Amino acid sequence: MNPATSQPLTKLVLLISPKGKRYLLRVQPGHQWSTNLGRIAHDNILQKPAGSIVYTHLGSPFLLLEPTLSDIIEMISRRTQIIFPKDAAQIVFQLSLAPGSRVIEAGSGSGGMTTALAWFVRPTGMVYSYEVQAEHQQKARKNIANIGLEPYVTFHNRDISRGLLETNVDAVFLDLRSPWRYLEAVKVALRPGGRLAILLPTTNQVSAALRRLYQLSFADLQVQEILLRRYKPIPDRLRPADRMIGHTGYIIFARNMTADTSDWYPAAVRRYLSRRRLATQEAARRGEVYTDENDDAILREDEE
Amino acid sequence: MNPATSQPLTKLVLLISPKGKRYLLRVQPGHQWSTNLGRIAHDNILQKPAGSIVYTHLGSPFLLLEPTLSDIIEMISRRTQIIFPKDAAQIVFQLSLAPGSRVIEAGSGSGGMTTALAWFVRPTGMVYSYEVQAEHQQKARKNIANIGLEPYVTFHNRDISRGLLETNVDAVFLDLRSPWRYLEAVKVALRPGGRLAILLPTTNQVSAALRRLYQLSFADLQVQEILLRRYKPIPDRLRPADRMIGHTGYIIFARNMTADTSDWYPAAVRRYLSRRRLATQEAARRGEVYTDENDDAILREDEE
Amino acid sequence: MNPATSQPLTKLVLLISPKGKRYLLRVQPGHQWSTNLGRIAHDNILQKPAGSIVYTHLGSPFLLLEPTLSDIIEMISRRTQIIFPKDAAQIVFQLSLAPGSRVIEAGSGSGGMTTALAWFVRPTGMVYSYEVQAEHQQKARKNIANIGLEPYVTFHNRDISRGLLETNVDAVFLDLRSPWRYLEAVKVALRPGGRLAILLPTTNQVSAALRRLYQLSFADLQVQEILLRRYKPIPDRLRPADRMIGHTGYIIFARNMTADTSDWYPAAVRRYLSRRRLATQEAARRGEVYTDENDDAILREDEE
Amino acid sequence: MNPATSQPLTKLVLLISPKGKRYLLRVQPGHQWSTNLGRIAHDNILQKPAGSIVYTHLGSPFLLLEPTLSDIIEMISRRTQIIFPKDAAQIVFQLSLAPGSRVIEAGSGSGGMTTALAWFVRPTGMVYSYEVQAEHQQKARKNIANIGLEPYVTFHNRDISRGLLETNVDAVFLDLRSPWRYLEAVKVALRPGGRLAILLPTTNQVSAALRRLYQLSFADLQVQEILLRRYKPIPDRLRPADRMIGHTGYIIFARNMTADTSDWYPAAVRRYLSRRRLATQEAARRGEVYTDENDDAILREDEE
Repeated sequence: MNPATSQPLTKLVLLISPKGKRYLLRVQPGHQWSTNLGRIAHDNILQKPAGSIVYTHLGSPFLLLEPTLSDIIEMISRRTQIIFPKDAAQIVFQLSLAPGSRVIEAGSGSGGMTTALAWFVRPTGMVYSYEVQAEHQQKARKNIANIGLEPYVTFHNRDISRGLLETNVDAVFLDLRSPWRYLEAVKVALRPGGRLAILLPTTNQVSAALRRLYQLSFADLQVQEILLRRYKPIPDRLRPADRMIGHTGYIIFARNMTADTSDWYPAAVRRYLSRRRLATQEAARRGEVYTDENDDAILREDEE
Repeated sequence: MNPATSQPLTKLVLLISPKGKRYLLRVQPGHQWSTNLGRIAHDNILQKPAGSIVYTHLGSPFLLLEPTLSDIIEMISRRTQIIFPKDAAQIVFQLSLAPGSRVIEAGSGSGGMTTALAWFVRPTGMVYSYEVQAEHQQKARKNIANIGLEPYVTFHNRDISRGLLETNVDAVFLDLRSPWRYLEAVKVALRPGGRLAILLPTTNQVSAALRRLYQLSFADLQVQEILLRRYKPIPDRLRPADRMIGHTGYIIFARNMTADTSDWYPAAVRRYLSRRRLATQEAARRGEVYTDENDDAILREDEE
Repeated sequence: MNPATSQPLTKLVLLISPKGKRYLLRVQPGHQWSTNLGRIAHDNILQKPAGSIVYTHLGSPFLLLEPTLSDIIEMISRRTQIIFPKDAAQIVFQLSLAPGSRVIEAGSGSGGMTTALAWFVRPTGMVYSYEVQAEHQQKARKNIANIGLEPYVTFHNRDISRGLLETNVDAVFLDLRSPWRYLEAVKVALRPGGRLAILLPTTNQVSAALRRLYQLSFADLQVQEILLRRYKPIPDRLRPADRMIGHTGYIIFARNMTADTSDWYPAAVRRYLSRRRLATQEAARRGEVYTDENDDAILREDEE
Repeated sequence: MNPATSQPLTKLVLLISPKGKRYLLRVQPGHQWSTNLGRIAHDNILQKPAGSIVYTHLGSPFLLLEPTLSDIIEMISRRTQIIFPKDAAQIVFQLSLAPGSRVIEAGSGSGGMTTALAWFVRPTGMVYSYEVQAEHQQKARKNIANIGLEPYVTFHNRDISRGLLETNVDAVFLDLRSPWRYLEAVKVALRPGGRLAILLPTTNQVSAALRRLYQLSFADLQVQEILLRRYKPIPDRLRPADRMIGHTGYIIFARNMTADTSDWYPAAVRRYLSRRRLATQEAARRGEVYTDENDDAILREDEE
């Protein structure tokens, strides 16, 4: 797909109709593409360079382009809306991925984020993609193969509550319902100083994940939200689009530390952690075990 | 900086104070770092792994981390605010940069965006960075060398109105005051289907650039704005930060086409282009030359 | 509608289905309301207090409420999207409307903004609503009568380029395509210190309007945009709605001054005004008249 | 302040320096205003009409204007940031306040929101403003008297957990730390169909308040956030301001119902309410009392 890359990817093309509809196509000799505007033989497309126009047998024109990374992710995610390019971009950037990086992802979803991760760790890095549901991962596998990124992805059909198989990875990305349950396993897999990103749709999940990250001495915690505002590209009537995506998710970023980093935490968090320590000790004295469920009482103390 | 990369970068470290202040340091044996919280010998830092804590001679602790790409860009841009990581991430993503990509940048600025581009075209790609002011470029050169990315950047101290020296590049990024003046040169340098990104602070500049892009048959024009909303990472008092960056810039994305793509343009743009064509012909009949300045009269016709 | 108000308004009710669909109904004895969930006699509704539930003959329940001002505006504007409650609220507030205020509006639209203005100038103020298209105004008139606000609105079916009929009004609101053409008339109608609001969808219109406001010595110019973000009201899955309105319009606020206020203008604006003054004098010397169209050349000088 | 209002308010003026600094002044004969740009006798100000310019004894000019409602609220709230005009506008609008409305507010704060409420219920309505801290309320009282709105405000120095003194009010506005504790009292005070607004800074508070509102059969729950984006008013360099207010608060709106409205609630909320009902019955069978603290266990069931 990118001619300058040493490993040539599968031939994917992007076709854009005059009305602006976008089609991502995997082109193969002898095949044919049918649309309600007419048919185009794949061989016709293969003969034309990117940047030109192709026509259906009824004469309807389509712009012929290589899909960008963003186009690919949008197409993959279209059915499941698992990841948006704006978020994938920010995550790749903040995780500081680079050629050679080793990164864990859970879950695989349809492979949208897997694509972004694999794209940037090429040609010497690796994405380890975990997914508990076999059928889900099958779809991700197929998407990654279609794009030609399979040399850079190792799929694990595995419940990560049983632990992660890699250690000393540079980064971890979690897109799970209850990520706080897996953060101890993440800490084991991440190298010291390694980076973590968690994508979460609700504020309640963000609160729960933050609590666990503080308990486990993660540092440099950041909660971010990326909003993309599109404008109608009309020079003399420039204005934002009427509708926009109102929310995709909150992103938490954190760094794995080997030391106790509570001095770097906000005062309210330090108060919570010390109350929790006390409660754990008291529970032990009574022969009980302190669990996360007990946190609610502790948190309420701070409300007054 | 990234241990997994074949070319080891210069040893840069990020230090974070308990108050959250961030320092980017280039560590060299025998040197010493002084802060109002005390001194730290660089050798002490070199002995410690990322993810640990280092102490000044007065006992003040600092988190020791590798800087992320985002940290580096923020530090480089701090003085000039030339580029923000949120925008750099979106641009890299939408330009679909990958290992091996060849990309032109103008101007170099302090090297903030150069860093992002070079980071992702490694290990086989190249950034061609143009800047008319020699002193400016000197700073960018130094920053890039400090980060260890100089193998992936070719600097040109040159006015791009004299033309670009490369051809068939995959992508172009413009961060200039009047980018519309250089779009013909850009079209020559870009390969068919190649991608263009333009960063502009004002709406008036966006309008002017769009007009020229349409005249030159660029396609798939998109105008975007990225807003980053930060949250205070306190689990039980989760809320956005009180202040946020209100604006950095608008980003235009476009694709280089070899054919006439006006059928893909909005109706208002097509009307403008056809009025312009007529006016150009009439001017020629009168032995005059139609210039962009004449556009204003043409545009006004559509207002009624 | 508001029981505490001296002038009782027409009986309007709001019905909400279990699926959240909202219906604004004007209730009259003997009438009947039909929906695909069944029928309800208006008399049944009239017997029930707000805050209760009414049932169709098929047993489907509806919440019975008085419509708020915001509900009314949304219903009126539904067909034309002429004004959004979020913008109407900000405009009323920034215009500092109060019982007794005299305010001019142009154009009337469907009466959505007329409603908001009339609502807050009661019981002793007056809205003067101009509209050039008779059919448009007819609809606004009907809407205002249905709501019961007609004592507070004077309609003028008149082109305001012929001048405004009132003087010394407290505030003016413009919702027109080319408001800059009417600002001289506005200045005559507004009392000294009086407040002006202009709603405009595009950035190009904002630029054009600002230019004229500066020429006419308006002061305290503000350009604002109001964004409303809605959240799904689920306590344990709190998150913003998936979609949001991306843009309704930019709002310019300004104050009418009797003195030259150019000292209060941004430096770039002062430069523009002085170049314009010079050009006007030169034109006069040549026996020509300087028009707004000549501004383009002047503006371009600042670009270098 | 508003000449058209029957009750003339105290003479407040707004002065704006050429640098854009804004001063709100209560003008009294014989007094003098001192600034580092010189002095102005109040009598000079009293002789000049709004819309003109006044000068200090050193010749520095100031724009002379009547303050708008928004100016007044900003000045009152400056020290405490208790309410922002953008939020006050939306609240007044969504509460559908009108001349004659009776509205309860708790707490009084510095009187910023009291001002907005009193402004719009004039001339025949009343604001009942509760505040437990006497000193706080003293400040609000003074601010309201300075503005001249005291005929429309009844202050209660009272803890509202002891109940509200009014009944059948049209609307209630809560700006308190733990508003969920007072919602039963609110329900008693509000007339059927009456409107409630709650302003809250954190997402955790929003969740807690929503839970209680659903338990008490409030309906038409809406959670909103208002973002104000300001633009630099320069016609040829139009762009948003560099910085913006990132967050002031979330606003919950709800309507008081006399019937059980759970059919109108989201499915997740209905599940929570029915689990809660069951748990309450079980607790009663065991001779225990179910409290809000027990909710945490119930909520966790839905997580799986």
